[in-house]
Order: sequence, then C-alpha cells, then structure tokens
Amino acid sequence: MDTKDSCVAVIFTSTRTDSNVEDYAIMAARMDELVRLQPGYLEHVSVRDPVTREGITVAYFTDEESVAAWRAVSEHTLAQQLGRSTFYSQYAVQVSHVLRSYRFP
Amino acid sequence: MDTKDSCVAVIFTSTRTDSNVEDYAIMAARMDELVRLQPGYLEHVSVRDPVTREGITVAYFTDEESVAAWRAVSEHTLAQQLGRSTFYSQYAVQVSHVLRSYRFP
Repeated sequence: MDTKDSCVAVIFTSTRTDSNVEDYAIMAARMDELVRLQPGYLEHVSVRDPVTREGITVAYFTDEESVAAWRAVSEHTLAQQLGRSTFYSQYAVQVSHVLRSYRFP
Repeated sequence: MDTKDSCVAVIFTSTRTDSNVEDYAIMAARMDELVRLQPGYLEHVSVRDPVTREGITVAYFTDEESVAAWRAVSEHTLAQQLGRSTFYSQYAVQVSHVLRSYRFP
C-alpha cells in the first residue's frame, strides 16, 4: 500500500472451524489466486493464528464497483457458501474507504 | 461490529522483529488496556502468525477525531517510537471510513 490512498479496503475477520483442513487450504489458495485476476484488485494481506483459529484478511481494490464484482464472481460465491456451511464458525466483513495511509520504514 | 456502520477503522499491518519478546508482550498488553479507555473507542481485533511474525490489528473508533487523539496519547507515542526502533521491521497504517458491514451468523 504505497500510493493507494482513496482505495477501498475490505476487512474480513473470521474464526475457522476445526475441521476440513485440506479442503479449506485448497479453497483459500484458489481464492488467493482468483482475487488477483479481479479488475480493480490492488493487494491483500492475510494472517491467521493457528491456535485461536482467528484470522484477518484485508483486500484493497481501486473502487466499490470492483468489490461488488469480486463478491459476485461465481466461484467466490460458492466459497462464501462453503464458508458459512463448513469453514467458519463466524465472520464479519467491513467495506471501508481509505482516507489516508502511512508506513514505516 | 454489530451496528457500527459509519465508524472509522484503523488497519495496522506489521512484521515483528525476532527480538524483545517480553518487552513487546508488556507493551502490547499495555496498549490493549489503554486503547479501551480512549473516548470514541469501539472495538479492536488483532491476529499475529507466530511463524511469519506478520500481524494485522484493526481498531474501530466512532470518528476521526478520536483516532487523532489516540495517536497523540503520550504512552502510545512512546510505543510508536519503540515500534520503529525495536519491535517492528516494517508496518503500514490505513485510516478508513466504514461504508457498510455484514456478518455471519
């Protein structure tokens, strides 16, 4: 995130269930691959604590239309359904507009 | 984040150095305690991967003025200085305005 002020940040916080480890890894890798192809995609960062199973992913897009398009991608829609049925015990999403940013170093 | 649309989300992504484990734990616990006392503070979530040492913290405030006030709290300013000198090899901050949110279940 160097010169990406005024972009849209999608904040995804989740708790993994303790099952379906391999299926989840496959799905997560596929989404990681797919989102990069999305028009308007800028970057994403993702961290999960293996002990608490809590994770935070932040994905950056140029604009809200790109976020809406990504949300509607059919493979991603299926992943969201699997997320609710199988992979996550809870999650929350916030779509936010980046006002300013700074970094070190 | 239930009914907190229109709040401000501060996204903090960082990479820990591999030193000062105890000092960092003390500082992090103190900041965790202190931010909750900040006027306008709503909630925060924080995850770090112990292997990659990458972490993401998202803190939610009612408005930008509360974020600016928290940034200027003297103990927090000192923690930021220690972050640059000692605790983090790199970090980035984005201040963003939450446009909409949803959650499961």
